[in-house]
Amino acid sequence: MKTTLLLVGKTVDKHFVALIDDYVERTKHYLGFEVEVIPDLKNNKSLSEEQQKEKEGELILKALQSADYVVLLDEGGKEMRSVEFAQYMRHKMNTVSKRLVFIIGGPYGFSEKVYQIAAEKMSLSRMTFSHQMVRLIFVEQLYRALSILAGSPYHHE
Amino acid sequence: MKTTLLLVGKTVDKHFVALIDDYVERTKHYLGFEVEVIPDLKNNKSLSEEQQKEKEGELILKALQSADYVVLLDEGGKEMRSVEFAQYMRHKMNTVSKRLVFIIGGPYGFSEKVYQIAAEKMSLSRMTFSHQMVRLIFVEQLYRALSILAGSPYHHE
Repeated sequence: MKTTLLLVGKTVDKHFVALIDDYVERTKHYLGFEVEVIPDLKNNKSLSEEQQKEKEGELILKALQSADYVVLLDEGGKEMRSVEFAQYMRHKMNTVSKRLVFIIGGPYGFSEKVYQIAAEKMSLSRMTFSHQMVRLIFVEQLYRALSILAGSPYHHE
Repeated sequence: MKTTLLLVGKTVDKHFVALIDDYVERTKHYLGFEVEVIPDLKNNKSLSEEQQKEKEGELILKALQSADYVVLLDEGGKEMRSVEFAQYMRHKMNTVSKRLVFIIGGPYGFSEKVYQIAAEKMSLSRMTFSHQMVRLIFVEQLYRALSILAGSPYHHE
């Protein structure tokens, strides 16, 4: 299994970039992992929120492959404890043969078509975070999950 | 009302420091807010986890004033949505006369004595985060809550 994190829009702030990159690199020790960025349409002022969501949805669908197992990071998704997310990742490693793709959407969320192709939705918290924060929290949790599975001390530091 | 975030142990990573400082400064536009750091005892290898928790607890109690309204950031605490946390902060601003003190504990959590003086416990997520992450998430959420109350666009960016 390969794991991909698909993002809509680049991370801009250099401190967020540095922290996210660090967890991404550390995660790669445990897992075939890559981050793919879809350009966002934020600066296209002629689009309504709905149109932007649709357009971003099309770009997301284009970036996917037919055998992908797609998990959306979504407010309405399932919340897990870190140890549960670790078990979740172990299960996926044993059952997903091609790509496990986590998607963090744009500022207005996902289009209906993206919801339709998703296998699951997960949520990191009841709270709403900035997009940069969601990315950082997700990669830290992914790294933590794999550390838990590997028995590394990170989770207890 | 004044609000204080009490931390056990300095934040070390410069990227986390920069991001946390940024949200702290932005929060100060809305609220009398300060961060107070209690030195952690992590490098004292002669202490057991239990002893370290006790010692840190004593230092926490020493840093508090008798009229403080104390809220612990704790796994077992109440989870709120960001808009609920905003309402929570509004309520506190109207009812807490002296200091509202949020406390993020050390690696082994809080001692029994600290639990005893706390008025409430809150949780940011079911997931476990590193101490640096908890700090960053908390200050971002505090800033977000105050932005929501002020009607600033930050929450919808």
